[in-house]
Amino acid sequence: MEHVFDELKRSLMEVQDLRIAAGLMSWDQQTMMPPRGAATRAEHLATLSRLAHERFIAPRIGDLLERLTSYEASLPPESDDASLIRVARRDYEKQCKVPAELAEEQARAASQARVAWIEARRNADFAIFLPYLERNVELLLEYAACFPEHADPYDALLDDYESGLTATEVETVFNRLKEVQPALVAHVTAHQDAVDDAVFWGHFPAEQQRTLSIAIIEHFGFDPEGWRLDIAPHPFASKTSTTDIRLTTRYNESHLAESLFAGMHECGHGLYEAGVSPTLERTLLSRGCSLSLHESQSRLWENLVGRSRPFWTFALPIVRSVFPDQFGAVDEETVYRAANKMHPSLIRVEADELTYNLHIILRFELEREMIHGRLALRDLPEAWNAKMEQYLGLTPPDDAHGVLQDIHWSGGGFGYFPTYALGNLISVQIWDRLQDDLPDLTEQMSRGEFAPLRTWLGERLHQHGRKFTPRETLQKVAGGPLDPEPYLRYLTAKVQSLYGPIR
Amino acid sequence: MEHVFDELKRSLMEVQDLRIAAGLMSWDQQTMMPPRGAATRAEHLATLSRLAHERFIAPRIGDLLERLTSYEASLPPESDDASLIRVARRDYEKQCKVPAELAEEQARAASQARVAWIEARRNADFAIFLPYLERNVELLLEYAACFPEHADPYDALLDDYESGLTATEVETVFNRLKEVQPALVAHVTAHQDAVDDAVFWGHFPAEQQRTLSIAIIEHFGFDPEGWRLDIAPHPFASKTSTTDIRLTTRYNESHLAESLFAGMHECGHGLYEAGVSPTLERTLLSRGCSLSLHESQSRLWENLVGRSRPFWTFALPIVRSVFPDQFGAVDEETVYRAANKMHPSLIRVEADELTYNLHIILRFELEREMIHGRLALRDLPEAWNAKMEQYLGLTPPDDAHGVLQDIHWSGGGFGYFPTYALGNLISVQIWDRLQDDLPDLTEQMSRGEFAPLRTWLGERLHQHGRKFTPRETLQKVAGGPLDPEPYLRYLTAKVQSLYGPIR
Repeated sequence: MEHVFDELKRSLMEVQDLRIAAGLMSWDQQTMMPPRGAATRAEHLATLSRLAHERFIAPRIGDLLERLTSYEASLPPESDDASLIRVARRDYEKQCKVPAELAEEQARAASQARVAWIEARRNADFAIFLPYLERNVELLLEYAACFPEHADPYDALLDDYESGLTATEVETVFNRLKEVQPALVAHVTAHQDAVDDAVFWGHFPAEQQRTLSIAIIEHFGFDPEGWRLDIAPHPFASKTSTTDIRLTTRYNESHLAESLFAGMHECGHGLYEAGVSPTLERTLLSRGCSLSLHESQSRLWENLVGRSRPFWTFALPIVRSVFPDQFGAVDEETVYRAANKMHPSLIRVEADELTYNLHIILRFELEREMIHGRLALRDLPEAWNAKMEQYLGLTPPDDAHGVLQDIHWSGGGFGYFPTYALGNLISVQIWDRLQDDLPDLTEQMSRGEFAPLRTWLGERLHQHGRKFTPRETLQKVAGGPLDPEPYLRYLTAKVQSLYGPIR
Repeated sequence: MEHVFDELKRSLMEVQDLRIAAGLMSWDQQTMMPPRGAATRAEHLATLSRLAHERFIAPRIGDLLERLTSYEASLPPESDDASLIRVARRDYEKQCKVPAELAEEQARAASQARVAWIEARRNADFAIFLPYLERNVELLLEYAACFPEHADPYDALLDDYESGLTATEVETVFNRLKEVQPALVAHVTAHQDAVDDAVFWGHFPAEQQRTLSIAIIEHFGFDPEGWRLDIAPHPFASKTSTTDIRLTTRYNESHLAESLFAGMHECGHGLYEAGVSPTLERTLLSRGCSLSLHESQSRLWENLVGRSRPFWTFALPIVRSVFPDQFGAVDEETVYRAANKMHPSLIRVEADELTYNLHIILRFELEREMIHGRLALRDLPEAWNAKMEQYLGLTPPDDAHGVLQDIHWSGGGFGYFPTYALGNLISVQIWDRLQDDLPDLTEQMSRGEFAPLRTWLGERLHQHGRKFTPRETLQKVAGGPLDPEPYLRYLTAKVQSLYGPIR
């Protein structure tokens, strides 16, 4: 049976190579490509996506998978080979339900919509984006209809990012967050003076921000021989292999915190991808398990490390060395508090730990309404603004600061947003768990020693890639199922320590 | 028959998209990729190359081509569609002779050899590169053996870069060059003091060199919305579409001339690729016709424009604005003469118009000996150095400045070098021809007006892409077959005008 397995593995690697090529083209499009290259690039991406899809759902793959049923059963289920067969079978059965033409059309529409979105955001003109969004949603409904086993079409979309999760589960968790977070927001809003983040505002040249970001994330694990850091309008992380990790960031020259935390955030994603076992290279298992687990890693490094008190003992001298004028006279406590300034704001990616989930709940609720046809897309800006007012008490000055701020819908990425909030929750579940094994973590962080933390995460989570389901993987790394309580406890404690006790 | 043609065109575009993806991966490898990504990148490139090859030589393509024979005959031969069928058939028949495994192995070996070559060059250690070169040559012989119609295996290799050209023809032309050029070299060597290029030596920060290069090549046609300029160890030009052109260059901070002329050179290549008719986009016709025609364009912009007297009337003020200290007091005649300093040197890409062809003749002769098994590869450095002494009177201090200087052999590119010298010859054939149509060219160049020249080249050459054979295309643009005499006349006149009359 081993030659049958070898054929399967080789065929799957070809598919993966095509996906990686598409991934690099997409990275290039967002970081390097001259703007006039966009139209043809959309065609290239459509072809690669379709060829990868066609090759993956080829009858020969189904035949090989079937012939390997007993071979798979003879292997330890946690082995790389059994996992590859198991996960490939699950993916195969799912993707066979999607016609190749639909997959190609989705890729093409997404690529064109991305260009329109950039243009729409630049001009703060939703009308430019509307027809492309309509096309994306139309195709998403066609896509969801390929999976009649999901009564709720939104579940079919969610499943792509968080296999096995349902909208009802998300709703339950989000309703629990809505019980606690608004009171915390009210408390913080009433005590705004308690925390001052002026230290992060001023003039910070992009080149020096880059130097600072790299200096810090090199301590986390950024390897100049195996990683890059570039600029993109919407920061993201990607890879072509575990030894070629691509982070992106953006620099706001009047606000240092943006690139500082974006860098740590994307580094968290990068560490997950770099940490997948090299034995899984070029297979479909060489990727983070799910988006919420991925986000748990970016959030862990951004918030639980980067916004912690011991981190600033380590980091302040570095920040001072790059920006001596601004930080020469600032003490650790001041910068720590500044890093934890909380207040309702318009832009999700700039949102603090307290308000972030509310941005997500807003998007999740709008997505469901769009997918269920309860909200006409031309009314989306109005619906967006109404919810912004309801959850955060704010009204965007224009759509660039509202409904056009995120890249996701331009790429057809519905069902993606909820995983951001779940990542927040999981990051604290993991953080609570690792305290037992890393009793010196606080001390280590204050000295800039992140190898023990990285190793722990690598062993419990990163190395596995996609070998196990999101639920199984969460169990391995957090020791239990999804649970909002650790996050709510953490958030409540942090809010009170910074903004005074809630009476 | 139109639906048959549509299917052919669609299938060929898929193949082309795979090639473009591989091209972008290769560009990325040379400009952006972190070094540790190399091993897996070799696998990715091997897969893409093999899939493109497999899809191109699929029996279905042969079937479509056959069914289109009479349709093709019904179309004007110069039409895009007839040309696509004709050239696709020629490529198909050729590539069908090469097994997919061989094509894949060549791509993988080349990718690995490239990494070894970089390492070898860095350490000036040919032994690091030797086993990879041996593997490349071994595979080239296998490749040449796929084409028994070529009595000389070297002709099979040459045909990939210059379809229809034979080693015997090259030898004839090169022998003619050898009749004239050595006497010119002797004359220049004896009158070295006549031209001083000190003005190009000093300290020129890379960032400012970049500013200067872009300022000049924007006048030639570089479009910031459709082009990029990056750094690569061996400068090259590539594209993903006619509106996404990628130039590369390198900066020697003590020698301004390198990036200045490399920028103009690569811009010439880029203009050819950008100028291919948009109606050919994503087809196999959307590429320069042959390497010698390509090189005629890079040489035309680098030498016939960039090393001309009127060019410096236009360019000196720009150079002065970027480097006021070094060029504030320099006059046009001085910088023009400096740009034309000629002297035997070790490095091909730094060679002047006079000695360049001798570097090529050396490589052509060594390649033939290697391919014919008359030279053991371990003896290559010695053979290289012997010919350097014979043709240029120089001995490289180490192999980094000798046999390891060029990237081509690492990529398995044998038969490529001769096209550089032929490009020099053709550039002057074209230049002579366009004088009739552009009587004001000298005036225009001195004012920085290059649109008429670009338009002429676009109409006569660029737009056609690969629609016609190299011989046909040369006829269209130069009005005659390959001829070394215009180049020799040009060179002789230039040498005498700068270094005094030869008695």
